[in-house]
Amino acid sequence: MNFDLLTTDNNSQARAGMLTTAHGSIETPIFMPVGTVGSVKAVTQEQLRNDVQAQIILGNTYHLYLRPGLEVLSAAGGLHSFNGWQRPILTDSGGYQVFSLAANRKIKEEGVVFQSHIDGSRHLFTPESVMDIQRTIGADIIMAFDECPPYPSEFVYARKSMELTHRWLDRCIKRLAETQPAYGHEQTLFPIVQGSTYKELRTISATEIAARECAGNAIGGLSVGEPEAEMYEMCGLVCEILPVHKPRYLMGVGTPWNLLENIALGIDMFDCVMPTRNGRNGMLFTWQGVINIKNKKWATDFSVIDEQTNCFASNNYTKAYLRHLFAAGEILGMQLASIHNLSFYLQLVKAAREQILAGTYAAWKAAMVPQLQTRL
Amino acid sequence: MNFDLLTTDNNSQARAGMLTTAHGSIETPIFMPVGTVGSVKAVTQEQLRNDVQAQIILGNTYHLYLRPGLEVLSAAGGLHSFNGWQRPILTDSGGYQVFSLAANRKIKEEGVVFQSHIDGSRHLFTPESVMDIQRTIGADIIMAFDECPPYPSEFVYARKSMELTHRWLDRCIKRLAETQPAYGHEQTLFPIVQGSTYKELRTISATEIAARECAGNAIGGLSVGEPEAEMYEMCGLVCEILPVHKPRYLMGVGTPWNLLENIALGIDMFDCVMPTRNGRNGMLFTWQGVINIKNKKWATDFSVIDEQTNCFASNNYTKAYLRHLFAAGEILGMQLASIHNLSFYLQLVKAAREQILAGTYAAWKAAMVPQLQTRL
Ligand SMILES: [Zn+2]
Ligand SMILES: [Zn+2]
Repeated sequence: MNFDLLTTDNNSQARAGMLTTAHGSIETPIFMPVGTVGSVKAVTQEQLRNDVQAQIILGNTYHLYLRPGLEVLSAAGGLHSFNGWQRPILTDSGGYQVFSLAANRKIKEEGVVFQSHIDGSRHLFTPESVMDIQRTIGADIIMAFDECPPYPSEFVYARKSMELTHRWLDRCIKRLAETQPAYGHEQTLFPIVQGSTYKELRTISATEIAARECAGNAIGGLSVGEPEAEMYEMCGLVCEILPVHKPRYLMGVGTPWNLLENIALGIDMFDCVMPTRNGRNGMLFTWQGVINIKNKKWATDFSVIDEQTNCFASNNYTKAYLRHLFAAGEILGMQLASIHNLSFYLQLVKAAREQILAGTYAAWKAAMVPQLQTRL
Repeated sequence: MNFDLLTTDNNSQARAGMLTTAHGSIETPIFMPVGTVGSVKAVTQEQLRNDVQAQIILGNTYHLYLRPGLEVLSAAGGLHSFNGWQRPILTDSGGYQVFSLAANRKIKEEGVVFQSHIDGSRHLFTPESVMDIQRTIGADIIMAFDECPPYPSEFVYARKSMELTHRWLDRCIKRLAETQPAYGHEQTLFPIVQGSTYKELRTISATEIAARECAGNAIGGLSVGEPEAEMYEMCGLVCEILPVHKPRYLMGVGTPWNLLENIALGIDMFDCVMPTRNGRNGMLFTWQGVINIKNKKWATDFSVIDEQTNCFASNNYTKAYLRHLFAAGEILGMQLASIHNLSFYLQLVKAAREQILAGTYAAWKAAMVPQLQTRL
């Protein structure tokens, strides 16, 4: 993997870059659609490629490990072959899902014992096993196994958890050094900064993570319920410590305005289920603000969903028709809303990148944020 | 509307024709995907046009009347504008749904009183109101309001029901003569032959229907639970009576082999929810036979869904991946299965048409039917 930092904004920490992996290049800042079990929900791979124009998608290690399972993924030749997505893929480490989805989890120094949320079967994730699993999935960027503490967490708990995450990171690095990619192409590890909402812990963690000199770095444990101001504070603090010439990935964030604010703090990569999950629920993000398409006010609004987002879903279907699809419980409503939202997110980060390259990001961001937050 | 009968097979009653409506031409025999509430479930209009290559789709009057309702459809300028489907549309009369879905229905000479299956609200459908509703929906081909008796029905009930359907038909014809299309384009009424599985009644009904000299004719009340042999018997008998130079539409049929058998009897048009409904349930129709993609046997079958059906869903995704999507409950599974099945159905009737034009239909059909029925 290679990262070229092309420019940094004069009036903020926003950066434009180019990330290159074995499966192609990614223009940063970038948003990565979430393909939980190897499918971005309700969107075909063709739509993701040609309409959404996603440059990289996410897979969830926890979900893929349970279904289809390693045997199938290995027989397929990895996730790229299995789901037919030949552009870059990033997999998370399963840590977040083990803590948010799985039952009866027990955290030990060795790793985490948990029960599947699907069938209750018992499993053990260790830093080593999670690296092996990610070798079998075969993503271009893979994540260290971390503990993601809930919000709020007591200081003492957050510190212990962070220290465990750091020890686990060293085991991840060691395991990767001892093993080879399963399908020939390079896999790059990103370690994860933790520390809850404590500045002291975030400072320690960012310093520790930076010292590992990995090719890219991630910030976890944010957007888990804390106020937005705290998220920005932690993110800004961590970005100041993480190395400048390596990509920075803020995990699980967020709204369109969250993206713009965090880009201003120096973040290069984002993922979030929001455009798809909220889309399936009838919430549309647009350049003018947020639409709840289920609202009766759209029943006879025959204007297109969003003429400023360049996408067939946004431009060929009306608000009235989309509202009807949601009212009638039609799957097509979820499809169109997901495709529109993802297209919007990808076009938003693309616009941000152009503003950064033009040196006008800070002013543009200040004007955009209130507009994006408007409830239509 | 215009129908050109191009050729009739030497060794069967199969016909190839060309049906022309205000929204374009349709090559017959044709299969019409069902767009219940104005959306073919899980398929975008772009996929329907470019991938499935549907030439005409169906809308359900009962469903559209309840949701989005006539006010919205009228404000939109009809269903073509509302859902953005600019090719031909056919609407059924709501009769079948009133009898199969609605609650507390009471059949009187005037019409049918029923309660909505959605909110229990009370409504009255009469031949006149159903014609007015179909004027507001604005389909190119509209159906007479009929009673569709269940299978089995007593002879006396089936006869009375059939006679009511004939009287309702005359009221439909009268109402249409007194009203104008709402959006300027021509709307053509198809009356419906009923008579359950009684040859005597089917003969009477087909004769009565033919005597109305409508531009096209339909056969209803079949594929409602009777053995396939009875369906073919009734269909063959009715086709012998219905005028040769007018299109014949067999409503709600059926499996791929049902289509081929009924084409051989002289049917030109079909609709059925089977490719989409069964698709959403994991049943795939292919040139080699029927696949239950949920079956464990496909878990590591990395061959494409169906290389003989020319469609991105059939050719770009593997059986193993599609099985995984169904096992994990991913919406994408329903989308891909629906698009594949519809593409297959459209390519099947296209192949049938080519065989008819080449004079080789009967032999081809005889070879195809057992192959299509194979359980893979
Ligand atoms: Zn999120
Ligand atoms: Zn059917």
